Amino acid sequence: MKPRTLFVTGGARSGKSSHALAEAEKSGLSPVFIATAQAGDPEMAARIDRHRGERGPQWTTIECPVALADLIAEQADPSRILLIDCLTLWTSNLMFGGYDIAAETARLAAAIEQAKGPMILVTNEVGLGIVPDNALSREFRDAAGRVNQAVAAACSEAVMIVSGLLLRLK
Amino acid sequence: MKPRTLFVTGGARSGKSSHALAEAEKSGLSPVFIATAQAGDPEMAARIDRHRGERGPQWTTIECPVALADLIAEQADPSRILLIDCLTLWTSNLMFGGYDIAAETARLAAAIEQAKGPMILVTNEVGLGIVPDNALSREFRDAAGRVNQAVAAACSEAVMIVSGLLLRLK
Amino acid sequence: MKPRTLFVTGGARSGKSSHALAEAEKSGLSPVFIATAQAGDPEMAARIDRHRGERGPQWTTIECPVALADLIAEQADPSRILLIDCLTLWTSNLMFGGYDIAAETARLAAAIEQAKGPMILVTNEVGLGIVPDNALSREFRDAAGRVNQAVAAACSEAVMIVSGLLLRLK
Repeated sequence: MKPRTLFVTGGARSGKSSHALAEAEKSGLSPVFIATAQAGDPEMAARIDRHRGERGPQWTTIECPVALADLIAEQADPSRILLIDCLTLWTSNLMFGGYDIAAETARLAAAIEQAKGPMILVTNEVGLGIVPDNALSREFRDAAGRVNQAVAAACSEAVMIVSGLLLRLK
Repeated sequence: MKPRTLFVTGGARSGKSSHALAEAEKSGLSPVFIATAQAGDPEMAARIDRHRGERGPQWTTIECPVALADLIAEQADPSRILLIDCLTLWTSNLMFGGYDIAAETARLAAAIEQAKGPMILVTNEVGLGIVPDNALSREFRDAAGRVNQAVAAACSEAVMIVSGLLLRLK
Repeated sequence: MKPRTLFVTGGARSGKSSHALAEAEKSGLSPVFIATAQAGDPEMAARIDRHRGERGPQWTTIECPVALADLIAEQADPSRILLIDCLTLWTSNLMFGGYDIAAETARLAAAIEQAKGPMILVTNEVGLGIVPDNALSREFRDAAGRVNQAVAAACSEAVMIVSGLLLRLK
C-alpha cells in the first residue's frame, strides 16, 4: 500500500500550516520539517524564527529551497513524516534561480508518487484575486497554479483550509 | 442549548451579505444590523447607503466600528438576530486605530461563545491572491486571516459563499 | 427536460478550463468553443494560440467578445455542446466597451435558462485577494462578482476548481 501523501492548500493566514503541523503530530511518526523559505530579508527571517518556535522539540528541520525531489527520495521512510512548507516559495525559488519549473515539477510529482514514507505538502492559492498589473506576477501566479495542479494530482489526499476549517478536495 | 452563531465568509461580491440577510430574515426574529463600516469617503458612503436601502423596514441598524464584544454582550438576546457586517472592516478599524488586534479578537470570540442570542458574522477572504507588494497590506492580510480563524472557531456553523452558492465549512 | 448547463469557476491556472474541456469531450456531442478573448496584445495572442492548440481537431471555434446571449440563442442545440471561456473577459469587454453590464448579464442569464442545448461556462474568481488600490479594479471586481452570481444561479450545475480538483457548489 502506498504511504499517505497529503496536499494542503489555502490562502495566507488561513491556518493551513497549523493544520499540516497537527496532522503530522497526530501521525505519531518522527516529524521532519522541510523548509523551502530562505531568510533573505528581516521580515522573512522573523517569520521563519516564529514558525520554528511554534514547533515542538521532537521536530527536525531541514532547509531545502530547491532540491525537493532528491530530498524526498533520501528522507521519506515509513518511520518518519515529512512536512514540506511551502511549494509556493519553492516555485518562487525555482523562478528566480532560473530553473526549468515544468521539469522540476515533474520530478517532484514522481518523487511523491514513489516515496517510501508519508508526507504533507503545504502550498498557497494565489490566483483568486484581481489580475496582477505586472507581467512577472502573472508569470509567477501561472507557475504556482501549475505546480499546485501537478502536486495535488500526485498526492493521495488533498484539502483546502479556509478560515481554519477544512474543505476536502480529494 | 447554545444559540446559533453563523460565520459567513467569501470574496468581494460573492453574495455573502445577501446570504447573511436571507438567513437573518428566515429566522423570524427581530433583525439588528451591526455595521462596522464608517462613511469615511464618498465611495464607502454610497456603498453603505445602497446596503441600507436593500434591507427592509423591520431592520434596526447600529454602527459599531470597534466595540463588537461589548455590543454583543448588550444586544444578543433570544428574541433578536444580530447581523455583524463585516469583520474585515472591523480588523481594518482596529489596525488603523492602533488597537491590540489579538486581544480584541480574543474578546470577540469569547463574546460570541457566551452570547445569549443568535448572530451571523460576515467576513471576507483576502488572502487568496498574489502576495501584496507593500508591507502594510501584508500585515493587514495576516491580521484579517487570524481574525477569521478565531471567529470561525468560536461559531457553531461556518459557510463560504462562492458565486452566490454555498460551501459548508462546519 | 432542460439541457445541462454547467458553471465552472476557479482561480488563475486552477485547471478550470481543462476541466471544462474534459467535460465537453466526455459528452460525445459536437464541441463548439466560444472564445471571449481578443488578441489585443502579444501576451494574450500567445495565450489564445496555446489554448487553441490544446483543443483537438473536432472543435469548432467562434470568437464572441460581447454578444453571448444572441450567440447562445443561435448556436445551442441538443447535438452540440457549447464551451464559453470565459465570463471574466466578457465582463471586461463589456466594461471597456461602455455596455450596461447589468442588462447584458440579465440577457445572458435568460439565454442560458432558455437554451435548447447544453453548455459549459468558465469564469474566474477575482474577489478573494486584498482590496485593489485603484477604483477601476474595484469596479471590475464587483462587476465580475455580480456576473458570476447571476450566471451560477441560471445554470443547472456549478463547480469550483482548486488545484485541479473539484468542489461542487450545486
